[in-house]
Amino acid sequence: MGRLILVRHGKSLWNVKNVFTGWTDVDLAPEGINEAKKAGKLIKSNHIDIDICFSSYLKRAIRTAWLLLETAEMMHVNCQYSWKLNERHYGDWQGKNKDEVLKEVGEDYFLSVRRGYDAAPPSLSCNDKRNPKFDPNYKDLDVSGLPLGESLKDTSKRVVNYFFEAIAPEIAKDKTVLVSAHGNSLRALIEYLEHISSDEIAKVEVATGVPHMYEFDSKLNVTDHYQLK
Amino acid sequence: MGRLILVRHGKSLWNVKNVFTGWTDVDLAPEGINEAKKAGKLIKSNHIDIDICFSSYLKRAIRTAWLLLETAEMMHVNCQYSWKLNERHYGDWQGKNKDEVLKEVGEDYFLSVRRGYDAAPPSLSCNDKRNPKFDPNYKDLDVSGLPLGESLKDTSKRVVNYFFEAIAPEIAKDKTVLVSAHGNSLRALIEYLEHISSDEIAKVEVATGVPHMYEFDSKLNVTDHYQLK
Repeated sequence: MGRLILVRHGKSLWNVKNVFTGWTDVDLAPEGINEAKKAGKLIKSNHIDIDICFSSYLKRAIRTAWLLLETAEMMHVNCQYSWKLNERHYGDWQGKNKDEVLKEVGEDYFLSVRRGYDAAPPSLSCNDKRNPKFDPNYKDLDVSGLPLGESLKDTSKRVVNYFFEAIAPEIAKDKTVLVSAHGNSLRALIEYLEHISSDEIAKVEVATGVPHMYEFDSKLNVTDHYQLK
Repeated sequence: MGRLILVRHGKSLWNVKNVFTGWTDVDLAPEGINEAKKAGKLIKSNHIDIDICFSSYLKRAIRTAWLLLETAEMMHVNCQYSWKLNERHYGDWQGKNKDEVLKEVGEDYFLSVRRGYDAAPPSLSCNDKRNPKFDPNYKDLDVSGLPLGESLKDTSKRVVNYFFEAIAPEIAKDKTVLVSAHGNSLRALIEYLEHISSDEIAKVEVATGVPHMYEFDSKLNVTDHYQLK
C-alpha cells in the first residue's frame, strides 16, 4: 500500500535571528544541511524507496529534499513543488523580531496568532515589497489567490487541499511519497492524518529533520505511523 | 510559444580518465560544477523563466540541472527524470580505457561504433554486474526494456520517443522547457529538431554547459535556435 513520509526542514539561517520567517526565502544553515543529510541516511538505512517527492516553493524545504534524496542515493526521484506546502504566511510580522512584535501587539493577540487556530497576523499591504506578487518565483501563479497573512486555519485549508489534489492520488497508486515542508504546513497534514482537533494541533511540535512515516489502507486511512530510527 | 533549452552536463570525474562512461553514474568534476553554474547565470542574465525541467537518471545531468536552477534562482521548477534521456549505453566498453578498446577491437569496428549510426558496442551479458537490473535506481522499471549496449540509432529512438511522450506536450502548452542530458542523448534530439541526417549527426559536437535555445511555432516546427550568450 501507499506510504507518506513527512520531513520538516532543519535549522535555517534565520532561526538564530529569532524573527518570523514565513514565506521569506532563507536558506538552510549548516546545521540544517546536516539534519537533511541525516534524514537521507535514515531513508537509506531503512531501505525505503521513494517514488515521488513534493516540496514547498521555499528553498530551505527544496534543499532539504535535494540533500535527503542525494544522501539516500535517489537523485532521480521526480520532484514537484507547490506554494501550497509553503510555511504559514506570517503577514506583516515576517522579518520582524518576535520579542519586539510581542511588546508591540501585547501577549493576548500575540499568543492567539501563535498558538490559536483562527487568528491571523496583520496582512501585508498590497504594495508591500514582501507581497508574493513582487517575487519572480510566484509570477506565473494567480497572485490574487496567494495569501498575505494566514491563521493556522488558513494554512491548513490550502495544505489539505493540496494533499487531495496532488499527494493522495500518488498514495492511492501505492507510491511511497516524500513531503519536505515546514512546521505549520506539516502540522496541517498531521491534523488531518491523525484526526487531531483544531484546539490541540497548535501544541503539536514537529521534529526537524526526522522522517515521519504514515502507512495507509486502500481507503487511505492511516493504519500506522512512526518516526524512522 | 513554447521553447526548449538543451544543456549538456559539464566535465565529469571520469572525463579525465579517458574511459567509456555511458550509464556509469559518475558525478560532475569541480570544473563541471562551474560549467553548470555558468549555464544558470546565462539563464538568469537572459531573463528566461523555466517552467519545467527534464533530466536523465544519471547524477551528472541531475546535478547540472539542480545547479543551473539554483544559480538561476528557480529551485522551485518541477523536475522529471527519465532513463530515456540517459547517455548512450556503451555496453561492455563501459569503464574501459578508450585506447585499450581501440587496440583490442581494431580501428574499423571502433570507429564504426563511435562515429557510425548503426553499429553497437558489444552488449553487457545478462549477469554482468554493470547490467542496469542490478542497479537499485532502475529496479522499479521494466528492466527487460532497458538497453545493454546501444548504437547511436538505438539511443536516438528512445530519446525521440521520450520527446514526444513527455517533452513535446509541454512545449505545446507554451512552456519553456529545460532538458539536462548527455552528448549522445542530446545529439538524438538535435538530429530530430534540426533535420540532420544520420550520416551527419555523429559529427555534430554539443558544447558542454552552454544552453541551446529552440523556439517553436504552433505546429511544433523549430522557427529559430541559438546558443545563449
